[in-house]
Amino acid sequence: MRISELSASSGVSIPTIKFYLREGLLPPGTSIGPNRADYGEAHLHRLRLLRALTVVGKLSLGDARRVLAAAADAQVSLHELLGTAQYALEPQPPKRAGDDAELASAWSTVDATLASLGWQVAADAPARGTVAHAIASLRALGWEVTPEHLVRYGRAVDELAAAEVSIRDQGADREMLVERMVVGSVLYEVILSALRRLAHEHHSARRG
Amino acid sequence: MRISELSASSGVSIPTIKFYLREGLLPPGTSIGPNRADYGEAHLHRLRLLRALTVVGKLSLGDARRVLAAAADAQVSLHELLGTAQYALEPQPPKRAGDDAELASAWSTVDATLASLGWQVAADAPARGTVAHAIASLRALGWEVTPEHLVRYGRAVDELAAAEVSIRDQGADREMLVERMVVGSVLYEVILSALRRLAHEHHSARRG
Repeated sequence: MRISELSASSGVSIPTIKFYLREGLLPPGTSIGPNRADYGEAHLHRLRLLRALTVVGKLSLGDARRVLAAAADAQVSLHELLGTAQYALEPQPPKRAGDDAELASAWSTVDATLASLGWQVAADAPARGTVAHAIASLRALGWEVTPEHLVRYGRAVDELAAAEVSIRDQGADREMLVERMVVGSVLYEVILSALRRLAHEHHSARRG
Repeated sequence: MRISELSASSGVSIPTIKFYLREGLLPPGTSIGPNRADYGEAHLHRLRLLRALTVVGKLSLGDARRVLAAAADAQVSLHELLGTAQYALEPQPPKRAGDDAELASAWSTVDATLASLGWQVAADAPARGTVAHAIASLRALGWEVTPEHLVRYGRAVDELAAAEVSIRDQGADREMLVERMVVGSVLYEVILSALRRLAHEHHSARRG
């Protein structure tokens, strides 16, 4: 297909497609004459993935490039590939002035919570830090936060996450799996959070 | 206490306290001499609430002012007050170019989901729109999203939300309840989302 069709089919504008070509994020099409190139399904899929990474996942171009490199490298296992994409999605915890002892204690609470849940998670998983910073912020505001309490939150998402992971890798190619993981992770997080707020409203109304 | 102690106790800087005083967000202290004023516990609580609204909840000053006005107005029921604060917290769904028919269909899916869950939620609750936009985005990317599927997400947070609402209103004053609601809503959302990502890693590792 021509670049105009590629744009129409993918929903990505021609200037953005040309930018991806210049940056090497999209491989060149097959030349079919001066200033004319033909693009195929692989280009369409790559554009979908790029849109998922940068628009839905809000990844920087540098992070998107790292994820694409991992997807193209057959030495990288599927679990590592999806991990690379997921770690890139993790929001940076806000810097807070605070006692390092408080943060260290929050990290211990995260460790204890994961142990109670029986979850095997890498020591450098960035979401650990996200949880630790949120715990430290809650404690600084006078809240008591215990592993027992956090375990209930973990159990609430455990089954959902298992189901999400299991439908994820039903026979698609690596780029498509990354796209699905990013889109599913980000957009279902939005849905889960908004449903929690709606549940608050429902239960609050019942209490009057 | 003097403004310097108020700053030390609240963790809010003196320039920010002076700004809140000028803006009327913090009531003046009792004058005890030229350029000297005395502040009490109520000022400390107000600063905690302002910090919860603007730093944790990222509310604009205009929204923070509306929440404070609702907290001060005894005619506003507790449920309405917490609703005002919660609605102010809702992220604005990103604008997307798209078929209005797709969005209308997504809204119907939200209605059907809430009906299945048996949740009573106001028709203008902004989190409905957040869910509808996320559904429309998923469908535009080729995902099938049904009420049956979304109900599982709702059930996952239903019990947590009920527990959160029930501990919320154990005998504190209105400003403190708003503070708790905002802090709990925002920081536990961060924790729940990060735990979901950790659960993905755990279940993905198990599948190899």
